[in-house]
Amino acid sequence: MDIEKNIEGYVRHLGQQARRAARQMANTDSNTKNQALRHIADNIRSQALAILEANRRDLAAAAANGLAPAMIDRLTMTEKSIQQMATGIDQIAELADPIGEIQELRRRPSGIQVGRMRVPLGVVGIIYEARPNVTADAAALCMKTGNAAILRGGSEAIDSNRTLAGLIAKGLAAAGLPATAIQLVETTDRAAVGHLITMREYIDVIVPRGGKGLITRLLNEARIPMIQHLDGNCHVYLDDEADAAMAVKIVENAKTQRYGTCNTAESLLVARSRAADLLPAVAAMLLDNGVEIRGCAETRAIVKEALPASEEDYATEFLAPIIAVKVVAGLDEAIEHINRYSSHHTESIVTGNYDKALRFLREVDSSSVMVNASTRFADGFEYGLGAEIGISTDKIHARGPVGLEGLTSQKWIVLGTGQIRS
Amino acid sequence: MDIEKNIEGYVRHLGQQARRAARQMANTDSNTKNQALRHIADNIRSQALAILEANRRDLAAAAANGLAPAMIDRLTMTEKSIQQMATGIDQIAELADPIGEIQELRRRPSGIQVGRMRVPLGVVGIIYEARPNVTADAAALCMKTGNAAILRGGSEAIDSNRTLAGLIAKGLAAAGLPATAIQLVETTDRAAVGHLITMREYIDVIVPRGGKGLITRLLNEARIPMIQHLDGNCHVYLDDEADAAMAVKIVENAKTQRYGTCNTAESLLVARSRAADLLPAVAAMLLDNGVEIRGCAETRAIVKEALPASEEDYATEFLAPIIAVKVVAGLDEAIEHINRYSSHHTESIVTGNYDKALRFLREVDSSSVMVNASTRFADGFEYGLGAEIGISTDKIHARGPVGLEGLTSQKWIVLGTGQIRS
Repeated sequence: MDIEKNIEGYVRHLGQQARRAARQMANTDSNTKNQALRHIADNIRSQALAILEANRRDLAAAAANGLAPAMIDRLTMTEKSIQQMATGIDQIAELADPIGEIQELRRRPSGIQVGRMRVPLGVVGIIYEARPNVTADAAALCMKTGNAAILRGGSEAIDSNRTLAGLIAKGLAAAGLPATAIQLVETTDRAAVGHLITMREYIDVIVPRGGKGLITRLLNEARIPMIQHLDGNCHVYLDDEADAAMAVKIVENAKTQRYGTCNTAESLLVARSRAADLLPAVAAMLLDNGVEIRGCAETRAIVKEALPASEEDYATEFLAPIIAVKVVAGLDEAIEHINRYSSHHTESIVTGNYDKALRFLREVDSSSVMVNASTRFADGFEYGLGAEIGISTDKIHARGPVGLEGLTSQKWIVLGTGQIRS
Repeated sequence: MDIEKNIEGYVRHLGQQARRAARQMANTDSNTKNQALRHIADNIRSQALAILEANRRDLAAAAANGLAPAMIDRLTMTEKSIQQMATGIDQIAELADPIGEIQELRRRPSGIQVGRMRVPLGVVGIIYEARPNVTADAAALCMKTGNAAILRGGSEAIDSNRTLAGLIAKGLAAAGLPATAIQLVETTDRAAVGHLITMREYIDVIVPRGGKGLITRLLNEARIPMIQHLDGNCHVYLDDEADAAMAVKIVENAKTQRYGTCNTAESLLVARSRAADLLPAVAAMLLDNGVEIRGCAETRAIVKEALPASEEDYATEFLAPIIAVKVVAGLDEAIEHINRYSSHHTESIVTGNYDKALRFLREVDSSSVMVNASTRFADGFEYGLGAEIGISTDKIHARGPVGLEGLTSQKWIVLGTGQIRS
């Protein structure tokens, strides 16, 4: 097929192949899936040089096209990152297989026994940007959960992704599984994405991994459910009864450990009764770390280095050494502010008060809500999921860090001995 | 506001009110929610005459507009159905409150304790056709789960629905809850539906309850996740090792107990080795019940009354005393046929063989899969959910009968004692 002349036909063809492969993957036992994963990890290790060469071609093209340094950074693979990729796949092979797990088989008054069995979703479409490691990672998670996947990586990484996809296909075939279980979209034409996100008959769910621009486009155009990840405008609230040392430690970790991650704190709220006491030490720590402080009038009265914060600052995911600070009357205003400005990703309260801790946990409407812990913990590995396909800021199907379970569904099973309904 | 002149503004206004009410509902304790439910049930009982009068106005208009008898049947309320409606609401008040339930608080190596807390979805949009009892039913389920709801009933039932919505609003207010927690769309203009299913900022999920035409339209136009219910083309498969008496009994119940329900069997598959033995008794029972049999050539060789089945018959939800019958080689062909033609609602195998029972349970890709039981059991009450907002044929979020849990989400909670990420 001449892909470029018939993008829609090409994507449809991928979809049909994926649907067929998904049926076989759903009925594949754990050992065979794990064998395929280990073959892929081995292939990646033994072909590290070929992967690096392909990546160098992508990097050369990226440099020629004047790609932004941040993008080039995300595109770049190293010997070490390739080894980590292989190790990650071996680790997914080690995880318990969620498929087939039966939950709560309960006997009903009619005599039937009713429960739920965990099953794959079917075909997963993954749309992502520059990082080529997503190719291996997403493929492994979909295989483990008995799904088929269609991967659409960024055009900048096409050579790296093609090489990885070839090694994945080989690993699948070596275990006797259909190579079409994991397919890469081979064209960089953006029209392919448009078809991918509307072919409901072939794709069951879309997992977007990328910037806000990508997600917003997909949200508007998709006709397929998404496990979406929007931005992370996370908050730390220092309550009237916060421990001062803990407050500094948690704000430092939440804000300064990494600036570019979605679970990094972008806003700090401080209870009025403690502003004069807590803000000087917190601000000194932030300024020491080179963080720009944008504060409300009360904050600036205490922290002279603070710039004025605009309304928009409170709604911004800076992904940079900048923090918005606001003094609030207390818990009620903090919760109200968070539920209004947050992207509903992750929020943390620092408090020694039991009732306020409980109210914060209950009333803050975000995918992760914490007491006396850094927002940086919002992560599939830290939560013990063993893996992470993304962090959902949605409430439907999966919320917060999404592990293997998010790539599965549960069907009902009924065990009878001839019962009929009366 | 002049609703008819600015439908979009009107629906937006409903959305804003619902969003505000949802915040309050989410933090309302179980007792208050249950009080409101009991007030509503009492209001319905004490105002039964007013409801009947409103319903009579709807019925008169329906007759004047030449509405189909089946629609008029679904629209008709009686003293008895009103009492049942009130009892249903009292029963929902009796159910355990799922909101706030915390699951599996596990300690992680970092020292934090991680678990999930059940929370409301937020604002639920319910779009339904003639049956006015859905108004009370859906309102009660959304209230119990701490959600707000916007209800869009069929235009035929507008007077009945308005009366019920008034009684619901009164019940909410009597318990000190916002009357806007449950709002009825007061215009019958179809444009309102278009706005309702695209206002992502105000509505979190759409639950459609209605015919295939409605659902297909919503699927194409909605920009909001749906808990959808498509058609029910359910199968019974009589395996080589089926008990003959059980086979007749289960097919009779699955096909003939009620013709118009989505869990009624529409297709019957019979293993070739047992066709001559099982089909005569099964066919005699079906014909006795006035069911038309449409069969494959092998079926017709055994059952002379059978008409020829077309390809389309195997894909049809008849909702009528008609059944499509096919003789298959055995389990493999049965599973293949079902996964191809079924609407993935409910399927049942009749067999005494352990391995085949297990394979059928695992390999049939439907929301309910049964062994030796009637497909008619696929129902929220029969499964012990206590209530049912619908039956999802989708795999995302909720699959099969959807009870209170389907109207909730789980957020992550983290209990720390000052932990930071290393």
